[in-house]
This record gives sequence, structure tokens and C-alpha cells, in this order.
Amino acid sequence: MNLLTQPAPASALIDGEAKRCVDFADRGLQYGDGIFSTLPLVAGFPLLLGRHLDRLQRDAGRLKIPFPDRSNLLQEALRLASFNPEGVLKILLTRGVGGRGYRLPQRGETTRILSVHPRPGYPDETRTRGVRVRWCELRLGINPRLAGIKHLNRLEQVLARAEWDDERILEGLMRDEEGFLVEGVMSNVFLVQGGRLLTPLIDRCGVAGVMRALVMELARQAGLAVEETRILPRQAWEAEELFLTNSVNGIWPVCGLEEKPFEPGAITRMLSRRLEALIGSELETRCEG
Amino acid sequence: MNLLTQPAPASALIDGEAKRCVDFADRGLQYGDGIFSTLPLVAGFPLLLGRHLDRLQRDAGRLKIPFPDRSNLLQEALRLASFNPEGVLKILLTRGVGGRGYRLPQRGETTRILSVHPRPGYPDETRTRGVRVRWCELRLGINPRLAGIKHLNRLEQVLARAEWDDERILEGLMRDEEGFLVEGVMSNVFLVQGGRLLTPLIDRCGVAGVMRALVMELARQAGLAVEETRILPRQAWEAEELFLTNSVNGIWPVCGLEEKPFEPGAITRMLSRRLEALIGSELETRCEG
Repeated sequence: MNLLTQPAPASALIDGEAKRCVDFADRGLQYGDGIFSTLPLVAGFPLLLGRHLDRLQRDAGRLKIPFPDRSNLLQEALRLASFNPEGVLKILLTRGVGGRGYRLPQRGETTRILSVHPRPGYPDETRTRGVRVRWCELRLGINPRLAGIKHLNRLEQVLARAEWDDERILEGLMRDEEGFLVEGVMSNVFLVQGGRLLTPLIDRCGVAGVMRALVMELARQAGLAVEETRILPRQAWEAEELFLTNSVNGIWPVCGLEEKPFEPGAITRMLSRRLEALIGSELETRCEG
Repeated sequence: MNLLTQPAPASALIDGEAKRCVDFADRGLQYGDGIFSTLPLVAGFPLLLGRHLDRLQRDAGRLKIPFPDRSNLLQEALRLASFNPEGVLKILLTRGVGGRGYRLPQRGETTRILSVHPRPGYPDETRTRGVRVRWCELRLGINPRLAGIKHLNRLEQVLARAEWDDERILEGLMRDEEGFLVEGVMSNVFLVQGGRLLTPLIDRCGVAGVMRALVMELARQAGLAVEETRILPRQAWEAEELFLTNSVNGIWPVCGLEEKPFEPGAITRMLSRRLEALIGSELETRCEG
């Protein structure tokens, strides 16, 4: 094998090619006209890839972005994972180049951008002891047409994340315009109250995360009552347990909300164990297959 | 002059270079983390460029995007205009590459994308007889932190513009979540009622256009009472005159709102004349200078 003629292992594929260049006229850049999903790579395996592709397909449908050939996306994800066995895979789809102004292009060609990034260096104890969180000032605007979708219009998150610099605080909780709790800047949020699991309804704003859906499934399998509902900040303060979910970090117990301490509780620990078991069995099946 | 070695006249400059390529990791693409402004090129002259640069600088300040050297932007705009004397210039600024997740990069380098596009082929009578408009179903979410800014989070406009295909309808009017009139998909909106000029307050959502500000100035200079206020759809139906503004098309009288006909009225015509005079004198000064 001649190393000199072998291309460097790609960390990004754009429409299947190893490159970093996107046309400036792409609607993803011009209007944030696109969607994304982010997942961990473990030992060369993209965790829960099927669920992430399902979510991308559902979000694309809601925005009427033509969904690319699913087996292409799968192949490209596996190709990147083989070059970069540990990391974070981001799959980003845009409506592509074209269209005069905001109007949809007549024959759009969806742009596929798959890229690998280092895993964020959070210490292990974020999953066991938990993380400290704060309230964000910025309120999420209400728009049911965009609610749930992991789209590229993320200025609210950028401004919310710019509200604090304290390295010890890993997440901020966000409320909507009416003051209801919605989510974290980069995570979904769950409360345990009276033995029930509560999570904000994502019908007016917020992102309906893949990990959020999975944790609700695991909780129901464990016989827990799970409710998606409007949640007031007061309920977060008074929760018996409080935890965050996202696809890269899994479940993060909250050990402090502003100055109030929380203990990682029994239900949070049970769900973390079930999640680890599910991931373990997914990795094992893949090794056998 | 050797034509073979001369580069093609650039229609886009990215960070000062004639190219089309943007790094996929640019935050403009990843998060819609940027702003833009659009203006006409007339006989090689970028109309109202100073006002557009002022607006970009103000919007950048609100999003804490480092504003690039203003004389660079000016030079680049003039350079593109010299290659492309007639068209539309779009100046787009992003927070550049970098930053882990939503967090702001420590030392960001703002990306500058200047590009020239053909003028939209609207017939002249759009400015004299007027345009037909409709109501959009999609409601604008309320977020005072983003209100007024011409940022890259434009999915609401993309979805609103996708609501109709009828080529005879050139614009859609948008309401906010509470039902108040805010703007057109690509324009601001003005009403004449009892001899006063009314336009929606842009303090909770919407874009505060350069042409909107200019038309308010011209109206005040003409002795008109101008009010920025909350406006109900009913007031648009009942207005004596109704018109739209944007930087590329100037003033568009509305000649029909859904099925209701409107006449381009005396105040709309007066403001159009004053706008033409101002633009004429700007072009003349520039030719003398």
C-alpha cells in the first residue's frame, strides 16, 4: 500500500465527496433552510443511526425537503465511522442551491453534509453525579409549524448559550414566550414528580430529540407513567428528580439548578441503566452481525 | 489586453476572494448564525449602500458578531458593482467557522459573502398600478431578542412563501402568533388611515427594513404623521391605501388584498415620487463626485 497516494481519512463527506466546500448559494446558508441530527460514534459504530435517519426523514417531510436516498446516507455514515471510530457524527441536510428568494426551488437537489467531530470532553461524573444547570433569560418564540424539528434556525440557542461563561455550568434551561419550561439549550429535560415522569410538550417550540423519545420508551417499558405536558418553572424547582437527555451525552442527572442542589434519584439511575443496556446490546448485535 | 489570462468578472467575493466556496463548518450554515442585507445596483452604483452597512453594523452588534472593517466591505461592494453594473447585491455576514456547539467562538473571524444576482423581473406596473397580495397562514413567532434583525434564520419566510404558487400574487402578508399584522414575506407594510401613515411596530418579530426606515423619514419630511404601532388585520382591510416596501423594489402599492381591490392612493404616489427623487439625486451626486 502506498501511503503517499492514499487520501487522508475523510472527516467530512459532502454529497458523497471528501471535501469541506459548500456553495455560498446553498439555502442552508442563505436561510437556515435545512435540518440536522447528531449522534455518537462508538468503536466505528454510529449509535442509534436508524432512529436518527427516521427523525431526519420526518423533519424533512415537515419542511418539504426532498429526502435523499436512505441507503446512500447509511453508506456515507458507515464510511465516515470506519475512518473515525470514536467521535460525534453530524448529519446535516439542506434544501440545496437554488430558488429565487424564499420561494422553493422547482427542482431542488438536497445537499448532504456528514461530518465527524471530537467527542466533547465532559468528565464521566456528569453521568453519575450529574451536572449543574441555570435558567436562561432568552425565551423561545412560539411557532407550531417549526416545533419539534431540529432545523438550522438556531439563533435562539446561540444567544441563550452566550448568556453564561461559567465552565462549571453545563446547560441552561429555556422557557417559551409564555414562561413554560421547554428544554435545555442542547438537551431535552425530564422531571420526576410523584413517581411519574414528566417532560415538556414539544408542540409549540423546542426540539423533539431522538434521546427524548427513546427515554420515554424505556420509561414506559419499565412501567412508569410518562406525561408530555406544559410544565411551569416552579415544577422544576420542586421536582423529586431532574435530568437532561441528548443523543451524544445520554442521560445527565441534574445535581444543581442555580443554587438548589438535587440528588440523582432512583428513577434517573434506573433509566440510565436501561439506556446503557440498550446501547450495549446494540453494540453487541452489531459485533455479532 | 489578453482576454485569455483575464479572470472572469466576479459575481461573488468571499472574504475578498472571487470564489463560491464556504467551509461547511461556518456557523452561518450550521446555525443560521449571521445576517444579511440586499440592495440594487444601478449603473454600477450600490443604492443606499451607507444605510445598508449601517443596518448590518447595528444587527451585528445585537448578535455580538464582530463587524468587519467597514472600508473593506465598501471596497468589495464597489468592486462587484463595477463588474456587474445592474443587478442585486447581497451582503451576508456570518460569525465564521468555529465554536464548540452553540457556544460563541473565542476568537471568531466574521465571514463576508458579497454576491450579485439578476434583478427580479417584475413588470414596471408593479410600481404604478400595484401588486396583489394574500394573507399567509403561518404566524411569526414572537422573540424580541431577534425582532428587527435581518438574520439568517428565515424558515418562517420559506414556509410562508411556499403557501402559494399563483404567479399573479406577488406577496403574502404575515401576522404574529397573537394575530397582529407584522410584514410581508419579503417586504414591510404601510397603511394610510385618516391621512396618517401606520406601520407595524417591529419590536417582537419581523425585519426592520432599510426601505421601511427611509419611507418613514420621507413621510415625516413631507409633514405626515407616522405611527409605528400594533395593527390588526381588520385595519389592513379597511385602510385607505396599502403599500409594501423593500430595498430592491422600492414602494409597491397594493392593488388587491385577497379579493378586495385597492387603488394606489395619493399618499402612496407622493411617497413614491419622493423616493424616486432621492434615489435620482443620490445617483446624480455620485456621477458628479
